[in-house]
Amino acid sequence: MTDSQDLSSFSKIVYPALREELHQVINQAGDHSTPDLLEMITYQLGWTGEDAGPKAEGKQLRAVVTLLACEAAGGDWQIALPAAAAVELLHNFSLIHDDIEDLGETRRGRPSVWKIWGKAQAINTGDAMFALANISILNLADSVSTKAALQAGALFHATCLHLTQGQHLDISFEDREEVDLDTYWKMVGGKTAALLAFCLQAGALTAGADLEIQAHYRDFGQYLGMAFQVQDDILGIWGAEDQTGKSVTDDLVTRKKTLPVIYGLAQKKTFYQTWTAGDITVEKALQLAEILQAEGGRAYAQSAADRLTDLALAALQKAQPEVEAGEILNLLARNLLQRSN
Amino acid sequence: MTDSQDLSSFSKIVYPALREELHQVINQAGDHSTPDLLEMITYQLGWTGEDAGPKAEGKQLRAVVTLLACEAAGGDWQIALPAAAAVELLHNFSLIHDDIEDLGETRRGRPSVWKIWGKAQAINTGDAMFALANISILNLADSVSTKAALQAGALFHATCLHLTQGQHLDISFEDREEVDLDTYWKMVGGKTAALLAFCLQAGALTAGADLEIQAHYRDFGQYLGMAFQVQDDILGIWGAEDQTGKSVTDDLVTRKKTLPVIYGLAQKKTFYQTWTAGDITVEKALQLAEILQAEGGRAYAQSAADRLTDLALAALQKAQPEVEAGEILNLLARNLLQRSN
Repeated sequence: MTDSQDLSSFSKIVYPALREELHQVINQAGDHSTPDLLEMITYQLGWTGEDAGPKAEGKQLRAVVTLLACEAAGGDWQIALPAAAAVELLHNFSLIHDDIEDLGETRRGRPSVWKIWGKAQAINTGDAMFALANISILNLADSVSTKAALQAGALFHATCLHLTQGQHLDISFEDREEVDLDTYWKMVGGKTAALLAFCLQAGALTAGADLEIQAHYRDFGQYLGMAFQVQDDILGIWGAEDQTGKSVTDDLVTRKKTLPVIYGLAQKKTFYQTWTAGDITVEKALQLAEILQAEGGRAYAQSAADRLTDLALAALQKAQPEVEAGEILNLLARNLLQRSN
Repeated sequence: MTDSQDLSSFSKIVYPALREELHQVINQAGDHSTPDLLEMITYQLGWTGEDAGPKAEGKQLRAVVTLLACEAAGGDWQIALPAAAAVELLHNFSLIHDDIEDLGETRRGRPSVWKIWGKAQAINTGDAMFALANISILNLADSVSTKAALQAGALFHATCLHLTQGQHLDISFEDREEVDLDTYWKMVGGKTAALLAFCLQAGALTAGADLEIQAHYRDFGQYLGMAFQVQDDILGIWGAEDQTGKSVTDDLVTRKKTLPVIYGLAQKKTFYQTWTAGDITVEKALQLAEILQAEGGRAYAQSAADRLTDLALAALQKAQPEVEAGEILNLLARNLLQRSN
């Protein structure tokens, strides 16, 4: 049996190596004439600036699961470090651009990059981190075969494109009256699940796993990402404030097209009528949450999350992971999805 | 002897193949749920929307020289097509982001992408084109060895980082009182010359040229790009309006830190005093241009452009290009730099 201690122990082992890997890559971005560029990058990574430290760094979950997948598929996590650094850089680049796109003023408890350095420099710094992520993924050629490095690179670039498709849909949701389920799943598949699917597959690929095993790891990441998003949608309406770190009415007040809402709108009943009748105040949001639950929106989303979680755990089992790393991945999935059994 | 007919003939031969290559890559970006994303990309490429056509497409110079360099280094231009498509996609991604960063409302005679679709979608579409460029460069694995494709990929990603460093400096110039020459050359090296250097080297690399020959092509591109930028700086102050397509006073009125200006400010004489004394009107700009010329700013920049042009042409000669493609490259350089001899 494993417990959360194991994930924490593994993270503690890999964090210094990951930081060293990131350090080597990003040092290419700054020299005597561009110190500010390097400063923006290290600020985004949580290393420098006011309140730098673990909270500002974030959990680096994507990097950790990449290394775990490598171990689970029979490799040494060290060989996957360039891939882990690449996903971390990619994730942070996307956060910088997301914050500009939706005018998010804070990130991990600190002002967003664009709030400090302005939009022009922030857009460009995001681009620089994207370039660094690309450099990092091809650094795999130092630890795996040329062919495997090229496969990982191609997979990474396709994943980046997939992310922008998801983001494109997410931005477009704001202007849409209604969103159909197909489009919702497509958005979640790109925005949340694609990168996690890449992390798991890349870990297995660097370990030398064959395509069939890689596909099982990929499926695990894909379903896990989708389940996690749906869980997040549910918490965004019915979660406790201390659980989510944001007001429980936020998602409704900002008219976010989450899965329960999309379901509720499609029923064309009281929820639909209340939602479409004017602005949503905090009081109205609390009322909407009750109506939506009564009309089956919560149960519908919970059933989808459960199904996706089952699919994720089944895919992990099919991948036949090494016992220790496999159990940490299993536990991590259950923690993320708040499953006790 | 060759004349501009040859470049035009070569372009006419390669344009349809380039378009087909781009078409195949970008088709991955759009499906039934993201047609708008594909529309923004094809609009930026000049293929769709109002006034689509050759003017909106641009000359695709970077792609053409990539293919020419492949021919010059003894290869068939067709094998360099994925690299040519990659530089075209990269260039267009950077234009989308540049236009947001400096609030440029038009591009190649049409509204910029952000003016039509808004900044959020435009930033994301730039990111999507960046991802497509990355996909395209690794597509080289279909026409060259795995090792060569990986080298081209690593070179491409390093070039992208270099571009963002140049752009970072360019944005920062707006807020600086003065810019030193080192920083100016660093900016030009990144923003204008790095991609051209890549184009030339990548063409030679795909043709199977050794590292020494690749370096000569790279130098040719690097010096050509720098010479071109200085030439552009000179035209921006003393060029005829029909030659540059913009008002000759624009660069001075907007206080652009071009090479002649940086030189003039460093003299700390009348130009410096006039420049620093309040706003620059059109009348004052005409006066400033005269003072700057009298203080040697024009001669200084022209001498730099001449020296860089000589270095570029010498590097091309050292590369010992195949006669026909080499002469087109030579001619193209002379045309770009307005050399008659």
